[in-house]
Amino acid sequence: MIRFNNDYSCGGHERIIKCLTDINDESFGGYGTDEWCEKAGEVIKDLIDNKSAGVHFLTGGTQTNFTVIAAALRPFQGVISAETGHINVHETGAVENCGHKIITAKSSDGRITAEQINEIAGQYARSDIKEHIVCPKMVYISFPTEYGTIYSRKELKDISDVCRKYGMFLFIDGARLGYGLAAPECDVTLKDIGEYADVFYIGGTKCGAFFGEAVVITNSGIDESFRSYMKQNGAMLAKGWLLGLQFYELLKDGLYFRIAEQAVRYAMKIKTAFNAYGIPSYMESCTNQQFFIMPTSLLESLKEKYTYEFEKTIDESHTCVRFCTSWYTKEEQVRELINDVHSLLQPRTSDS
Amino acid sequence: MIRFNNDYSCGGHERIIKCLTDINDESFGGYGTDEWCEKAGEVIKDLIDNKSAGVHFLTGGTQTNFTVIAAALRPFQGVISAETGHINVHETGAVENCGHKIITAKSSDGRITAEQINEIAGQYARSDIKEHIVCPKMVYISFPTEYGTIYSRKELKDISDVCRKYGMFLFIDGARLGYGLAAPECDVTLKDIGEYADVFYIGGTKCGAFFGEAVVITNSGIDESFRSYMKQNGAMLAKGWLLGLQFYELLKDGLYFRIAEQAVRYAMKIKTAFNAYGIPSYMESCTNQQFFIMPTSLLESLKEKYTYEFEKTIDESHTCVRFCTSWYTKEEQVRELINDVHSLLQPRTSDS
Amino acid sequence: MIRFNNDYSCGGHERIIKCLTDINDESFGGYGTDEWCEKAGEVIKDLIDNKSAGVHFLTGGTQTNFTVIAAALRPFQGVISAETGHINVHETGAVENCGHKIITAKSSDGRITAEQINEIAGQYARSDIKEHIVCPKMVYISFPTEYGTIYSRKELKDISDVCRKYGMFLFIDGARLGYGLAAPECDVTLKDIGEYADVFYIGGTKCGAFFGEAVVITNSGIDESFRSYMKQNGAMLAKGWLLGLQFYELLKDGLYFRIAEQAVRYAMKIKTAFNAYGIPSYMESCTNQQFFIMPTSLLESLKEKYTYEFEKTIDESHTCVRFCTSWYTKEEQVRELINDVHSLLQPRTSDS
Amino acid sequence: MIRFNNDYSCGGHERIIKCLTDINDESFGGYGTDEWCEKAGEVIKDLIDNKSAGVHFLTGGTQTNFTVIAAALRPFQGVISAETGHINVHETGAVENCGHKIITAKSSDGRITAEQINEIAGQYARSDIKEHIVCPKMVYISFPTEYGTIYSRKELKDISDVCRKYGMFLFIDGARLGYGLAAPECDVTLKDIGEYADVFYIGGTKCGAFFGEAVVITNSGIDESFRSYMKQNGAMLAKGWLLGLQFYELLKDGLYFRIAEQAVRYAMKIKTAFNAYGIPSYMESCTNQQFFIMPTSLLESLKEKYTYEFEKTIDESHTCVRFCTSWYTKEEQVRELINDVHSLLQPRTSDS
Repeated sequence: MIRFNNDYSCGGHERIIKCLTDINDESFGGYGTDEWCEKAGEVIKDLIDNKSAGVHFLTGGTQTNFTVIAAALRPFQGVISAETGHINVHETGAVENCGHKIITAKSSDGRITAEQINEIAGQYARSDIKEHIVCPKMVYISFPTEYGTIYSRKELKDISDVCRKYGMFLFIDGARLGYGLAAPECDVTLKDIGEYADVFYIGGTKCGAFFGEAVVITNSGIDESFRSYMKQNGAMLAKGWLLGLQFYELLKDGLYFRIAEQAVRYAMKIKTAFNAYGIPSYMESCTNQQFFIMPTSLLESLKEKYTYEFEKTIDESHTCVRFCTSWYTKEEQVRELINDVHSLLQPRTSDS
Repeated sequence: MIRFNNDYSCGGHERIIKCLTDINDESFGGYGTDEWCEKAGEVIKDLIDNKSAGVHFLTGGTQTNFTVIAAALRPFQGVISAETGHINVHETGAVENCGHKIITAKSSDGRITAEQINEIAGQYARSDIKEHIVCPKMVYISFPTEYGTIYSRKELKDISDVCRKYGMFLFIDGARLGYGLAAPECDVTLKDIGEYADVFYIGGTKCGAFFGEAVVITNSGIDESFRSYMKQNGAMLAKGWLLGLQFYELLKDGLYFRIAEQAVRYAMKIKTAFNAYGIPSYMESCTNQQFFIMPTSLLESLKEKYTYEFEKTIDESHTCVRFCTSWYTKEEQVRELINDVHSLLQPRTSDS
Repeated sequence: MIRFNNDYSCGGHERIIKCLTDINDESFGGYGTDEWCEKAGEVIKDLIDNKSAGVHFLTGGTQTNFTVIAAALRPFQGVISAETGHINVHETGAVENCGHKIITAKSSDGRITAEQINEIAGQYARSDIKEHIVCPKMVYISFPTEYGTIYSRKELKDISDVCRKYGMFLFIDGARLGYGLAAPECDVTLKDIGEYADVFYIGGTKCGAFFGEAVVITNSGIDESFRSYMKQNGAMLAKGWLLGLQFYELLKDGLYFRIAEQAVRYAMKIKTAFNAYGIPSYMESCTNQQFFIMPTSLLESLKEKYTYEFEKTIDESHTCVRFCTSWYTKEEQVRELINDVHSLLQPRTSDS
Repeated sequence: MIRFNNDYSCGGHERIIKCLTDINDESFGGYGTDEWCEKAGEVIKDLIDNKSAGVHFLTGGTQTNFTVIAAALRPFQGVISAETGHINVHETGAVENCGHKIITAKSSDGRITAEQINEIAGQYARSDIKEHIVCPKMVYISFPTEYGTIYSRKELKDISDVCRKYGMFLFIDGARLGYGLAAPECDVTLKDIGEYADVFYIGGTKCGAFFGEAVVITNSGIDESFRSYMKQNGAMLAKGWLLGLQFYELLKDGLYFRIAEQAVRYAMKIKTAFNAYGIPSYMESCTNQQFFIMPTSLLESLKEKYTYEFEKTIDESHTCVRFCTSWYTKEEQVRELINDVHSLLQPRTSDS
């Protein structure tokens, strides 16, 4: 089975497993107070050129999202998110479980705009009955979004400006950050992310690590007691060095960015080929997630050899699905998929 | 100042204050274990013809809403509501503060349909990734809605049927229940409400009482530990008889329904007159809340003598406002308002 | 039935009911934005000589306790309380329901000491693993305590000093504040309370009002968004003036203190008499709640005419019970009780 | 540095790292829906001889504790635990953060008794004011306890019986389960644990795995929606097979029990030697955690070569510390420690 259904169906990069093996007999301090977390933190702080940032390592995306939000907000405050935001649709209400409302903004491609945020925050700021409504105190965006789209540097800056204008925190979910930064049309750097966001994370689970997300907090108010929130929310791994080590290995020489770049290149190949074959993109994604509207019959033929993710039914004969590449996707797999789709479409075309 | 801005700006019905005065020297058991609560409960159970229902008295609407929802749902379950539902917009995130997501359905007039509910519940029922999404386990509707509209008996039944189909609870917010049942076009009875809902409440605060909401629970699973939830959520008044007494007095001979009916009649007078003067209704409400699109200049002239509630700006010269009648609204006040609007419009008409 | 079982079994002071009747036709602004709340707030601020304090009116003790704690603490912070504190034993876990741990200190008479608090706070301050333990950020004491005991001015000052030393808030539950201040041996003034506490409340429910607690916040950080917490927690009465009016009436000329003083005087009579008859006090209370160890047979004889509250079984023939006086207790009732106990004990003595 | 401070300072068993390496190129289904989790679950169900149990893999102890408790309890229900229980002292209030009170029972050695539980549950059962107090609905015990002590089969059965009598769940924290079952004096089997508990877990983090806890749920009510609770609480690892694989490898042929048995054997050697040298045990632990009261000067001498964990100061010259062995402790390390302590004590004895 060749898996294109998601980007978390394989273990970790070989360099990580080698490193894990090498140090397996050594012992380290617990709960993230070890030299690997220290070194990984230094690398990250260098990358964003901010020595005073806080860096913390958590185990997964949902956990990271609600722990950050719980640490930042008071009970009467909520977080603005795209309707399609992961926290709003696929985390079993984890944010609400922590007591916070998600204030949704409509989105057609996973992104929201500074204008939308300004509208929501302004409405609260001007309200005469503030005590009756939830205070928008944080903005959550994902980079890239759940639909594979990205924000331009200008869009990010505008969002950041609105946040600062209203004293709101900007939180960037970077579960797939590597793939976003690797997009051909991306004009945003990791340093920009560090500058615009109050808190963001560098996703490891989907981008070379076995598991783990590196949370970077540039807002000292949020950082101050963050470790207490981590522990309270079950997000402080006893053997924290397992996380530090992975991020150190991935980031120390840019491996993280190279493997993401390759995955995005493969995704583009698939997109170009599919589009050429008359399979339209459902969303103009420039990253490793590609959404297509495909003949349902074609998908049926593909499913014995490939996995892909069902998104929704378009009509009786078409379905929207996601094909994901990842750091572990191989060039042959991409070629094979493209060829198979081509072959499967050929006869059908000749038939009709 | 003549207040039409809301329906909770006056104390309680004179019969209540008389009764309170009469028994003020007597002593009663605490926390709702008294004869007044007992008697009021009996009256209510008779009204809905359901002797096994649980009846509990709480102090206000927001408190009632979140206490009921907290009592009914488990952490991974959410409540379906109109986007415009009170719990979603004007309760400072009280439901989320209890850990539950509000799953919103679009609404143009405050109502949602059985189809919308069926769509949401069906989507969850058919999902392969249920553990990643919030389980819709309750439907919250208000009767009448925040916009003064009401559901027909058929609509209620359809909603109730969908709820039962999917094992969801139906919760009817009756903060203004009296006004809803008194609507000229209402074909729903209190007994219907008790039959279709798993839990609902008869609003007192806005309908003759000084304060208080009578929660009626026909679903024994929700009723079982409800008093624990009341206490935990600060919703169990030490002198519970103050609540029981009010509801007994209001309901024992139908006073509640008569005073609501009168308020709705006054609202209709205002509506008919305003519409006749060329002031359009923003929403076709048949209850005590009337929303109009009025010339902003006219509102300016009215505001020294009358209060009304700002809803939103329509354009540079028009504003949407709410005029509310209530059980304490007097016929003269209504007549005066209508006359003043008429007079104020006359010269303007002749001027233009 | 003559009720000594608690201090909340009668309505409100006659002056309040008169006032309520007088203004019943008038209309007021909602949610505590009315002239009565304003006036009551001014009186209270004068009483504590602190014009910048925030004053808010809530409906009951449990509600007040958790709303204040929710407003003051972050999720990883807890509140220190006597094991016997009301929040720890009789509020159905309301504080934990808001997400906060109660850090208990042992207590034999309802009080805790500055030393105990210093020990707990110091332990945290010196800990190397702060992120693994709950941060003590607030101290909750009741004045008088659940056992009727009070703190001296010196004790309060010491507790306040420890709180300030460690940056903790001091929260004084004054559900029975009037009775505490009226104790013969009390050397604390309301102004002292306002000076030592960051937040406290003046209990109305048990002390002359129909219902209501006046929360006074001298710490601006807690006060800032307090109204949002009130609304979110169902603690903002729509007709807030019902609360403001009661406190204004009770406090404007010292009525509150006079009626409390009388109740305490009656309690002392009962105590003196009972002790003289050989009935020992279980706790040396100087306020309106008196705990006695009584022959169970005597209690059996009393219970047809009087109510009292069971505390616990002492041995086969003795029971600890609470006798409560209140602002509505009448001198005759006290005399009658004392006489009856005397008579009931006489024959028994002669019998034995 | 030779680490005896805890049992989580080394990676994972070599067989696990080999297995991880072997399958690193393979891909698997996400979120625990893979063959490794399946196989590990089967092995565990065989071990407890209960094919209908639910088995779930989480990443750490704190996370497991609060997720299980959140899944089992309703808001007004609490969990009984020893005062010294991990959930009560070292998890930053995670259980309270989920809204539940921990009802503490005194404990001198980490254990609580069926009598204590019976007392607490009985008190609630007999209470007339149940709605004012937290309902004890679960009992949490750790096996072995935080002090290394264990329960006998009889004690466990008695506790289980009380739980069933009152309809309470029994939850056994098995973070160090392997070490408990390996204790020389242990008469409890894994199957017993599965029979007595409604839910328990087999700790991996401290017992051979890199990380992970295997939760076993024999109570179908708790199991039913457990995956929703896992996801909501950030406890569902995207690459769940990393956990399944580890438990399969550890349990398929008893490796888990063998390595735990060795660690306990080493701990006994240390205990025997230390005791023989006049160093008393602070607690009579029969598992891998040993608590000693040691001369502070001796500890000072040891600390350059060994790590141990500070527990508390006993007097000016003595300190209570923990020495932990683990699956990765080597015989030479134990021998070296014993020799060093012996040598360090010798001269001191001759000196004095």
